[in-house]
Amino acid sequence: MLITSTKNEIVKSVRRLRDRSARRESGQHLIEGERLVFDALEAGIVPETLFIEQGRTDFEARVSALGAEFFSVSRAVLETVCDTSAPQGIAAAVRTPELTAPESAEDFPHGLIAALDALQDPGNLGTIIRTADAMGAAAVLLGTGSTDAFSPKALRAAMGSTYHLRIFQCELSETLPKLRESGFSLVCGHLAGEERLPMLNRDCVIVIGNEANGVSDGIARLCSLCRLPMLGRAESLNASAAASILIFETAKKINGIEF
Amino acid sequence: MLITSTKNEIVKSVRRLRDRSARRESGQHLIEGERLVFDALEAGIVPETLFIEQGRTDFEARVSALGAEFFSVSRAVLETVCDTSAPQGIAAAVRTPELTAPESAEDFPHGLIAALDALQDPGNLGTIIRTADAMGAAAVLLGTGSTDAFSPKALRAAMGSTYHLRIFQCELSETLPKLRESGFSLVCGHLAGEERLPMLNRDCVIVIGNEANGVSDGIARLCSLCRLPMLGRAESLNASAAASILIFETAKKINGIEF
Repeated sequence: MLITSTKNEIVKSVRRLRDRSARRESGQHLIEGERLVFDALEAGIVPETLFIEQGRTDFEARVSALGAEFFSVSRAVLETVCDTSAPQGIAAAVRTPELTAPESAEDFPHGLIAALDALQDPGNLGTIIRTADAMGAAAVLLGTGSTDAFSPKALRAAMGSTYHLRIFQCELSETLPKLRESGFSLVCGHLAGEERLPMLNRDCVIVIGNEANGVSDGIARLCSLCRLPMLGRAESLNASAAASILIFETAKKINGIEF
Repeated sequence: MLITSTKNEIVKSVRRLRDRSARRESGQHLIEGERLVFDALEAGIVPETLFIEQGRTDFEARVSALGAEFFSVSRAVLETVCDTSAPQGIAAAVRTPELTAPESAEDFPHGLIAALDALQDPGNLGTIIRTADAMGAAAVLLGTGSTDAFSPKALRAAMGSTYHLRIFQCELSETLPKLRESGFSLVCGHLAGEERLPMLNRDCVIVIGNEANGVSDGIARLCSLCRLPMLGRAESLNASAAASILIFETAKKINGIEF
């Protein structure tokens, strides 16, 4: 079936996924481009709606071989649903994983967890998810007020890592104390901290704060504070740069890796 | 003097600084917003053209106290010259520092230098300049094909660090051998590298490659190769995340800092 009208109801419902509220209501989000879509299909994800640009018989063949159904759409339709200005011929609406954090600390995955306290920038969030994945983290906690991990920009920056680890939305002030009680070390990057990593259990949470304001006081009080040594004239680092360094240092420490 | 026309010749000449070619020809670039502009004025930089939004008597008083001249402009004028959608009431065209790298290795600053081999993304470049500054780096080398450090996006991401260290444009294949001969260690982040930092002199260059293709073969052959241990499923890191980690690790090592 070929869809050429941008006013088609299916197109309109996919297009609405640009809005966070529509993503939340529908429980779906959009993934764009060859890499993200085929990663998802190969991981066994069945799209709710899959669009292939008319004439991309290469994509049609690969998608059919994976047993997925699709709509052939015009370039104009693909452009209207995609966030990127030059969409790569394929996009899919897929079900968003369950983001509600477990009630009990026992039901969290073990190991390294990155927690974000009201992180605002989708590019920073995606970059942090990618670094957390690269360093073997088991989960990312999105504290209240953090940007959406399933927005097009955050997904793009995460380069597929969004699907490699668990993502939970939670109230950090409720979740972190439970994790601490069950044996997780809690560390946060903070300007008032010591210039070295504290002792860490193999289960540990590294908390990264908001771009402008850092970690909120209530959350910082739950954690060991730690700041990166600053040797030059910059007063602070970009949030995703600081997070990447802290996640790497933590992963090295709990895994006994020398670098 | 109040300028309200977006067609005014002064306004047009400042607006042109959005283009890299115009920045190169004029030897000027635009800095936007309270923080960047006042950092520059307080560092003694004399703007070529300074615009203050009509009615911002607070900025007028501070600028006058610093002895700088300015034009009062309408909101529409400020919006037409600025890259940000919501300009913060002040912007200045300033002279770009000399970017030509010294002929002789003796004339380079000593210590830690970050070198970028065809880095494309202005946000990544700004973030790397900020991290390099934070870690006490003396200079950043922009290899041929790298994005402009004085574009609005790169300046914004660098948060003022662009003016805290030396920035040189150069052909890395010519500059790096000279630096190595004069005693600099050369290291680059590379997927084929060892998973640990090599021995380093206090003078050292850390080379970061292009977002998609990494460090080019000719440059990699000049360096010790080093890769970050990857413990999860991500195949690589964002360029500025990888650079931030490598710069931090290098700074720790050459300064004997434990973390």
